[in-house]
Amino acid sequence: MSVAVFGASGYTGGELLRILITHPNFNVTVATSREYAGKPVYLAHPHLKGLLSLKFSSTEEALRKDFDYALLALPHGFSKDIVPSLLGRGIGVVDLGADFRLKDPSLYREWYGWEHPHPDLLEEAVYGLPELHREEIRRARLVASPGCNATATILAAAPLVNLGARKLLSDVKVGSSEAGSKPSKGSHHPERNGVIRPYSASGHRHQVEASQELSNLAKEEVDVSIVPHSVGSVRGAFASVHAYIEVEESVLWRAFAKFYSGEPFVRIMQKGTYPNVKNVLGSNFADVGFSSDPSLPRVTGFAAIDNLMKGAAGQAVQSLNIMAGVEETSGLKTPPISPV
Amino acid sequence: MSVAVFGASGYTGGELLRILITHPNFNVTVATSREYAGKPVYLAHPHLKGLLSLKFSSTEEALRKDFDYALLALPHGFSKDIVPSLLGRGIGVVDLGADFRLKDPSLYREWYGWEHPHPDLLEEAVYGLPELHREEIRRARLVASPGCNATATILAAAPLVNLGARKLLSDVKVGSSEAGSKPSKGSHHPERNGVIRPYSASGHRHQVEASQELSNLAKEEVDVSIVPHSVGSVRGAFASVHAYIEVEESVLWRAFAKFYSGEPFVRIMQKGTYPNVKNVLGSNFADVGFSSDPSLPRVTGFAAIDNLMKGAAGQAVQSLNIMAGVEETSGLKTPPISPV
Amino acid sequence: MSVAVFGASGYTGGELLRILITHPNFNVTVATSREYAGKPVYLAHPHLKGLLSLKFSSTEEALRKDFDYALLALPHGFSKDIVPSLLGRGIGVVDLGADFRLKDPSLYREWYGWEHPHPDLLEEAVYGLPELHREEIRRARLVASPGCNATATILAAAPLVNLGARKLLSDVKVGSSEAGSKPSKGSHHPERNGVIRPYSASGHRHQVEASQELSNLAKEEVDVSIVPHSVGSVRGAFASVHAYIEVEESVLWRAFAKFYSGEPFVRIMQKGTYPNVKNVLGSNFADVGFSSDPSLPRVTGFAAIDNLMKGAAGQAVQSLNIMAGVEETSGLKTPPISPV
Amino acid sequence: MSVAVFGASGYTGGELLRILITHPNFNVTVATSREYAGKPVYLAHPHLKGLLSLKFSSTEEALRKDFDYALLALPHGFSKDIVPSLLGRGIGVVDLGADFRLKDPSLYREWYGWEHPHPDLLEEAVYGLPELHREEIRRARLVASPGCNATATILAAAPLVNLGARKLLSDVKVGSSEAGSKPSKGSHHPERNGVIRPYSASGHRHQVEASQELSNLAKEEVDVSIVPHSVGSVRGAFASVHAYIEVEESVLWRAFAKFYSGEPFVRIMQKGTYPNVKNVLGSNFADVGFSSDPSLPRVTGFAAIDNLMKGAAGQAVQSLNIMAGVEETSGLKTPPISPV
Repeated sequence: MSVAVFGASGYTGGELLRILITHPNFNVTVATSREYAGKPVYLAHPHLKGLLSLKFSSTEEALRKDFDYALLALPHGFSKDIVPSLLGRGIGVVDLGADFRLKDPSLYREWYGWEHPHPDLLEEAVYGLPELHREEIRRARLVASPGCNATATILAAAPLVNLGARKLLSDVKVGSSEAGSKPSKGSHHPERNGVIRPYSASGHRHQVEASQELSNLAKEEVDVSIVPHSVGSVRGAFASVHAYIEVEESVLWRAFAKFYSGEPFVRIMQKGTYPNVKNVLGSNFADVGFSSDPSLPRVTGFAAIDNLMKGAAGQAVQSLNIMAGVEETSGLKTPPISPV
Repeated sequence: MSVAVFGASGYTGGELLRILITHPNFNVTVATSREYAGKPVYLAHPHLKGLLSLKFSSTEEALRKDFDYALLALPHGFSKDIVPSLLGRGIGVVDLGADFRLKDPSLYREWYGWEHPHPDLLEEAVYGLPELHREEIRRARLVASPGCNATATILAAAPLVNLGARKLLSDVKVGSSEAGSKPSKGSHHPERNGVIRPYSASGHRHQVEASQELSNLAKEEVDVSIVPHSVGSVRGAFASVHAYIEVEESVLWRAFAKFYSGEPFVRIMQKGTYPNVKNVLGSNFADVGFSSDPSLPRVTGFAAIDNLMKGAAGQAVQSLNIMAGVEETSGLKTPPISPV
Repeated sequence: MSVAVFGASGYTGGELLRILITHPNFNVTVATSREYAGKPVYLAHPHLKGLLSLKFSSTEEALRKDFDYALLALPHGFSKDIVPSLLGRGIGVVDLGADFRLKDPSLYREWYGWEHPHPDLLEEAVYGLPELHREEIRRARLVASPGCNATATILAAAPLVNLGARKLLSDVKVGSSEAGSKPSKGSHHPERNGVIRPYSASGHRHQVEASQELSNLAKEEVDVSIVPHSVGSVRGAFASVHAYIEVEESVLWRAFAKFYSGEPFVRIMQKGTYPNVKNVLGSNFADVGFSSDPSLPRVTGFAAIDNLMKGAAGQAVQSLNIMAGVEETSGLKTPPISPV
Repeated sequence: MSVAVFGASGYTGGELLRILITHPNFNVTVATSREYAGKPVYLAHPHLKGLLSLKFSSTEEALRKDFDYALLALPHGFSKDIVPSLLGRGIGVVDLGADFRLKDPSLYREWYGWEHPHPDLLEEAVYGLPELHREEIRRARLVASPGCNATATILAAAPLVNLGARKLLSDVKVGSSEAGSKPSKGSHHPERNGVIRPYSASGHRHQVEASQELSNLAKEEVDVSIVPHSVGSVRGAFASVHAYIEVEESVLWRAFAKFYSGEPFVRIMQKGTYPNVKNVLGSNFADVGFSSDPSLPRVTGFAAIDNLMKGAAGQAVQSLNIMAGVEETSGLKTPPISPV
């Protein structure tokens, strides 16, 4: 089956290409980039030199070509305008941006500042977290694949929600690749190396989708506040989701084990050991764990992911596999790389 | 005035020496090390070569010498046995370990596993956070100087406590130098570089002293739970102290500004900007800030410190200055170094 | 075909397992570790949890088992004693240590301090750099696979030797994983992070094998001096091989292109661009390039490799593939991972 | 005495301010920045918040003010136009750019692409390496202070030149702060973290000034070729200067010890130990050492400096001190900070 990658010159686009190069079921036949249109892929991704002989095309050219599936790794706000025509041509779409993640159209006005042009598609779109929506993804035409902060938060929180937590504070720590491939003052190496600082710490956008999904799971309102922090890693996102409920660790263990039973990409840490981003880098794994402290009381769910894999490209391919009816882990079996 | 540094071959000891080399009021005349006794200081601290001609002595030798003040940078449990004799000789002591930080002797049994031999000295000892206990430090013979997790937590939390917060979750992120100079699996460079993972996440020791100090401030019970995380920085400790209270940011700003008014080493971030460990490295500054989110509701106090300075050696010298009646900032005026 | 990995709990051992888990032609049936004997593989390699259900065995147990090939990732000096019995049982051996790399037995006395017990096997063993010895590897029973400093040096130098260079200075820069998984003062994160310093800078052991191989290529004496440097990376080895000859860059380009024509794992940089370890991480690629300066005159060959892959485990599997008669790139097709 | 810092919003400018804040003999009264003119210094340098109440001015405003000395941390090509008027007003100038470093005006045409407008000032200007030109700096009106690659190269090479080396290959490794505070693709954190790669590897500009100074020392032609490499450090520059001469290490030690005898900022490593950038960070020290290898034969001189201190701001203040007749180490006594 043929796949087009839209927005293929950024980091997430590069990861999609990296995965698909060795994927047994898909071929990348189109890769778009505004900046690199007409140029060979290796100019944007020198690590892929010799592995892919494709040239980047513009979005316009790409839309004139044929392919079976489209993966959209575009900046927020760019997918909403091309998705309808792709769907209209019978092309299955996995969108890695935020344009189709929220069910309530008014939230786009509030959090993104624009009116959603296709509220019907919001209803149809499936939130692309297979651990919550596997069956709907199987039947979907349009998957809205979540990003790293939301993925890590939801995976760490879901078993806590099942235990009754309704107010969740997600303290997230992320590496620099999360902000993309465009240089900025905050990502300038001398400034970013060794950094520990919060960003967007009041009303983080991605808490809206985390609340939506966890409320959906609880079948009642769940409030989530995300406080993200930049740290000096390149890859990795780690969520520590705190809730003021009293649950002992053996009960937590059972809740996590039950919730993620049979999941191919979720590994559960044993009591007293914790997830570590170093153990998932380069892979689609999410390592999850927990701790509890009777002194507030407080429980915490932890999730460690590779922000470009389970937090972006890997997760999108996982949904693509499910949509396309191939093995869910196809193309995603490469073990984590460690140490790196 | 002469100073002895006990435990001078570790990182905190090295920082004490670095500060004291250029301190206008004190001379280091004794530096102890079990491992390096008899050897020149530069063997343990090659960066100080040419700046200090001292040799390390053993603890026993050191205790036979004369000096005006003693700074104890020993592992937990080692200070309690030598402090009484130092005090008996009229030597002022700043202990950087945990042996005299807790007021309630039973807590040593519970959290450290030993019976405290000198409960009377627990009563006398002053918790060495000048922002809370400046006047008592001035009159003290024995100061129990706090470490980086407690310092960052308390400085971020104190204004929130004044605003009514009584249940505080401190999500701390620290660099590798916090664990000392002894190699271990967790601090092995390939394992630690780029890491994001929790440690001691259930019942962290230092939350006991944070609770003690913040309860003391509130004049009622304040519960603190600390969840510390290792990140890939070398220096820096960052506390994000979360509380489920509703306070808007302008009120938070005033609370922080009032609480730290006149403090020589606390800098308050303006609304919408956050502390960053990169801005305090090499200095005794604590940069503090805050955010709030109406959605839980939730407020967060932030504090960024250099774990070896305001989180250890710098703070100890600040207390030493106060005790000794010299200018509080003496020897601590070196600006932060950035970028590094 | 079944493979035993000896010394499987270190970093190179972990990489061998990571590669072999998805290798279509080989199964790991035995993995040895002195430290972890009897324990599951994921205890030493938590990133491989869920991917390999093997337990470590002792060397003694392992030698009683059956397998087709043995990969030896043991410390220098340990292979020489077990290789003869493995060969005697018809097992093909790829040794990743130094025990069989040198042809002249007297060099072991001089550089390693021991008498080689099997000089006949030195004659038989093939130096496992497929770019130089592919055909001999195909017929070999015993391959002595080179490490990262020698591999990077030889790959950067070989085309220069063909252009007449006979005195080569290899200034190598390596990441911390090169020194293995055992913690030490030099690899302690606070000491290693951001470091730039030489080590073993007078008479480096691996220059002996580089001289042997390059002299063999030149059919006359080639002298190589290696000056290795530790830098703050985790993975990556980079050789800058300088020679005082005058060759212009277009001639250099042709020499490199010709030398590595058809090589599946060598990529040649275009004039004016240089190799970068970031483009080969996680893969078996060696990116090679060059520069020249008329002012001495001076030419430099550059090679960037992943020290654990083309500098260790990947190269060993490449030789294993050749020996076993399967496709040379089998199991080694995973693209480099970037950024990481 | 009052000092104006031109180009004060970059990294070198920030370091000059950091040093001068605690300098006992100088006050910064003017700091220029095109980007930040009119804004407080802490906006560009948040680490200096609370330590300096100055606002940035434009170059034009600055030139209308009075001050005793000017430190120019401007991009190459900007100093040459303002230096004559500063000198004309009796202001002593230390220029940290390249505009006055070369004696031969034709070299500006060849290496920088412009005609030098003030060849007379080239003759007058003193190359600001106190280890070579202390007495001339004392009498100078205009000091051309060298950058990090040249400083490290010359300090590592000078004793070798005295031993007869005439063809020197300087393999330099530098951290990211060397390239300044402006974000770029190459300094984007995900790209730069852990990098090892050469840059400007054919005909590096700074080898011209190194050749000039070392030829001057040798009183005959000395050829220097610099091959610089980017590594993942933030601070630090390390030169490994290789020469094909045969000298044993005890002779090398004496040559280094003699050459740098009495130098306040040069520390010589003992035989068998090597300089390390980690031991000089934050200070004006240059740690120098050497190794030799009989096999080519080859000798190497090593120098480790903090690129923003001895490689830029610290060295400029050292020259300023000498020019102004104050103690040479004034304001530069802060010990190196380690670990960081």
